[in-house]
Amino acid sequence: MGKLDKIALDKDSGEFLYHQLYNEIKELILNGELPPDTKLPTIRKLAEKLEVNNVTVVTAYNQLEADGFIYKKVGSGSFVKKLDKVEKSEEELEPSGIANFGSTAPTPNLFPVEEIKAAIDEVLDRDKANAFIYQESKGYTPLRKSLVSYLEKLGIGTGIDNIQIISGAQQGIDIISKAMVDYGDIVFTESPTYTGAIGVFNSRGARAIGIPIESDGIDVVELENKLKSFRPKFIYIMPNFQNPTGYSYSEKKKEKLLELASEYGFYIIEDDYLSDLHFNNRQNRTLKSMDKADRVIYIKSFSKLFMPGLRIAFMVVPSELYSGILSAKHISDISTPGLIQRAFDAYMRNGNWDENIKRINKVYDLRYRIMVKAVEELMPEEIEYILPEGGLNFWFKLPSGQSSNELYDYLLERNISIAPAMVFDLNGEDSECFRLSVTSIDSEDIRPFMERLTEGMKEFFKAGSKSKLTAEQYNRFL
Amino acid sequence: MGKLDKIALDKDSGEFLYHQLYNEIKELILNGELPPDTKLPTIRKLAEKLEVNNVTVVTAYNQLEADGFIYKKVGSGSFVKKLDKVEKSEEELEPSGIANFGSTAPTPNLFPVEEIKAAIDEVLDRDKANAFIYQESKGYTPLRKSLVSYLEKLGIGTGIDNIQIISGAQQGIDIISKAMVDYGDIVFTESPTYTGAIGVFNSRGARAIGIPIESDGIDVVELENKLKSFRPKFIYIMPNFQNPTGYSYSEKKKEKLLELASEYGFYIIEDDYLSDLHFNNRQNRTLKSMDKADRVIYIKSFSKLFMPGLRIAFMVVPSELYSGILSAKHISDISTPGLIQRAFDAYMRNGNWDENIKRINKVYDLRYRIMVKAVEELMPEEIEYILPEGGLNFWFKLPSGQSSNELYDYLLERNISIAPAMVFDLNGEDSECFRLSVTSIDSEDIRPFMERLTEGMKEFFKAGSKSKLTAEQYNRFL
Repeated sequence: MGKLDKIALDKDSGEFLYHQLYNEIKELILNGELPPDTKLPTIRKLAEKLEVNNVTVVTAYNQLEADGFIYKKVGSGSFVKKLDKVEKSEEELEPSGIANFGSTAPTPNLFPVEEIKAAIDEVLDRDKANAFIYQESKGYTPLRKSLVSYLEKLGIGTGIDNIQIISGAQQGIDIISKAMVDYGDIVFTESPTYTGAIGVFNSRGARAIGIPIESDGIDVVELENKLKSFRPKFIYIMPNFQNPTGYSYSEKKKEKLLELASEYGFYIIEDDYLSDLHFNNRQNRTLKSMDKADRVIYIKSFSKLFMPGLRIAFMVVPSELYSGILSAKHISDISTPGLIQRAFDAYMRNGNWDENIKRINKVYDLRYRIMVKAVEELMPEEIEYILPEGGLNFWFKLPSGQSSNELYDYLLERNISIAPAMVFDLNGEDSECFRLSVTSIDSEDIRPFMERLTEGMKEFFKAGSKSKLTAEQYNRFL
Repeated sequence: MGKLDKIALDKDSGEFLYHQLYNEIKELILNGELPPDTKLPTIRKLAEKLEVNNVTVVTAYNQLEADGFIYKKVGSGSFVKKLDKVEKSEEELEPSGIANFGSTAPTPNLFPVEEIKAAIDEVLDRDKANAFIYQESKGYTPLRKSLVSYLEKLGIGTGIDNIQIISGAQQGIDIISKAMVDYGDIVFTESPTYTGAIGVFNSRGARAIGIPIESDGIDVVELENKLKSFRPKFIYIMPNFQNPTGYSYSEKKKEKLLELASEYGFYIIEDDYLSDLHFNNRQNRTLKSMDKADRVIYIKSFSKLFMPGLRIAFMVVPSELYSGILSAKHISDISTPGLIQRAFDAYMRNGNWDENIKRINKVYDLRYRIMVKAVEELMPEEIEYILPEGGLNFWFKLPSGQSSNELYDYLLERNISIAPAMVFDLNGEDSECFRLSVTSIDSEDIRPFMERLTEGMKEFFKAGSKSKLTAEQYNRFL
């Protein structure tokens, strides 16, 4: 039975057994563990082995066939099919054939288009012209109520008067900075970090100081050292599945950070885009859920969990900061479009949200596991890395002195995209590191794309690296 | 025939005669010139007088009856009806019974809800998930193309590479300021002005200097004097139907302003929200259409012409400034929601836009004319004013030394809302002036509301004004 030996079904999980079996076999195929034309066990044999009913196996095989993963030969049995793209993404989205490890835009085949369309129709039928009036700057009240319930499930207790609706997480960073940061102020960030945030801090005339990130979270020793010399307005962090590294904070480091915030009197901006998901059954507690002293400004993005183009997100704002942040929202764009707020609220109230999260969790978890396996099996040994505990981003390091900008250029000519360290560096400087993301890559493409990528890297090593480039500097203060 | 003597129909206009007649009589009713129970002329008499067919008058009368403006008594003829509200706005919109001269939010009965719903459906059927991907920061390309055509009709020649889609005019002011204004810089504005702009300039640490506005535009002598001492990054103005005064610039002042911009090397932000309309057949040329030296950054708002809650607007940006403004848009909110951009584009391409403008023009023109008449007939003689040439805003002045903040408080207790000068003052200071707007008031409510307002003002004068209040200062630099 070979590779199928490792299949284990959980009869107590409440998930249909045929569906579990379907997923397990699908994953083996996508992982490359069951190459094309591998013969699958007969129905009777597999059913015996797994101690399930024949019908369970028949149903799983039928579904695998319907979805294009296997084919049947009359009299011979079932075989693994050479993969077409199973889920088709729209042509508009992706230059054809690019192995896009560079982007973190989710594949559009994940978007619940029909459900959001239904929600929009519902809202327009119900609210008519009111869906298009000026919406209050803090956000549509029923949506803020829905979000309070949603947060309760994530262990965050708050009230509607602390919720601020925003047009995406980027705007959250912008309006917090408008409210809190003046020319010459200091802010801390992780290093490397999301440079969309650095752009905002620079635009406010602030000085951003980076604190190194480690595989279990920010370097708290270095942080405390810096706190002895500087008084930052806030520190901007991503405690779960940090961008770009993918690393998550240990509980201990989360607690330490909260302690330091109280001790040194700074705020923490928690940028959360994926904590709802529990890769490998790991629970990803948000910092906000541990925040007794009201030091955390929590930004929740739905760009990876839902749809980036809707531009909707929200913040939980400490009471002390609320009115300043509300004013900053007002001068930024008056309000987030009412129609989108109302439709998103209807979507959540219809119970679609929980289903959506379950569905996204499965897809992303599968991508994560396929990617982990591909990295472990295919990545050239010159490359250093620490695998993240979940998420969609993976962080790698070339041998000392080599340039990820050069690797980027080299691979792009081969139609492979990666994100070099420069994009996440506070000074916009090149280094050995780079990020691979599977947000923009369907499960069945990950393995073949990783094969292309790692082949390309081997050629790159053979070609010999040139000296490190210094990129145009993004940041004039460091 | 009395009041109906003044009716004149234009047989060459291309508009149906019955429709012209309908509008003329409707206006007389809404103006209060034909009070309830006034008998209208017989069909034959009116037809003779106007030299039209009997059918024209019959059709106009029937339509007036159907719309609730007149009633018929068998054997006696047609009479003016006591007005119900003819157009019903949603209850959510307006605290019941308030005479809302304070707000400039358009009445929702003007919103083309069905057409935009159809456009959304069209987009979702056509683009599916692509309607929800990250949209490029400069904006959806087909929409930028549609806007280039639209601008051509307004006499503004530009290309898609100069169009930047924004989430409302307020965001336009914000991102221009991000791109152009640093701590300590100087900007000029009209005085009084829209203080949402002042909020942005203050947030950038800029010093805003106000130049007085006169009934034919900004005081260009004072402007030139100030230019000899200061080097502003830009001047922020509304050349047509300025907010709050309603005044429009003469052609001469527009030309002078453009000359000064070239001579002294500053940019002009033209905030345009109503120039499409031609109240009293006046053509309202935009400054941008006269801008040969590419000194004008043109912001077009659709909040009064279309629907404020959609939060969509655009800018025409001089080539020299484009990349900086694009970066500022990116760090502000990545992009304006793709769905809204696509729906607005579909709406424009379906030809709905031109119809919409015609419709809005009629409604606003009627409101303007009713308001002008009400002001002329009802406003207490203590009040000074210069009537604007069109638009929805009217600016008034109490006798010297009186406080519009006090008038505001006094009227609000009587369920009447006005906008006191403080809201438009660069320092947030009280003065004698106030703004009345008919944006939020249906045509049939203007006259009765003005009666309430002017009665309230007379009582206010009788009660005797207290001394002038100094309001909380908005601006720390002046």
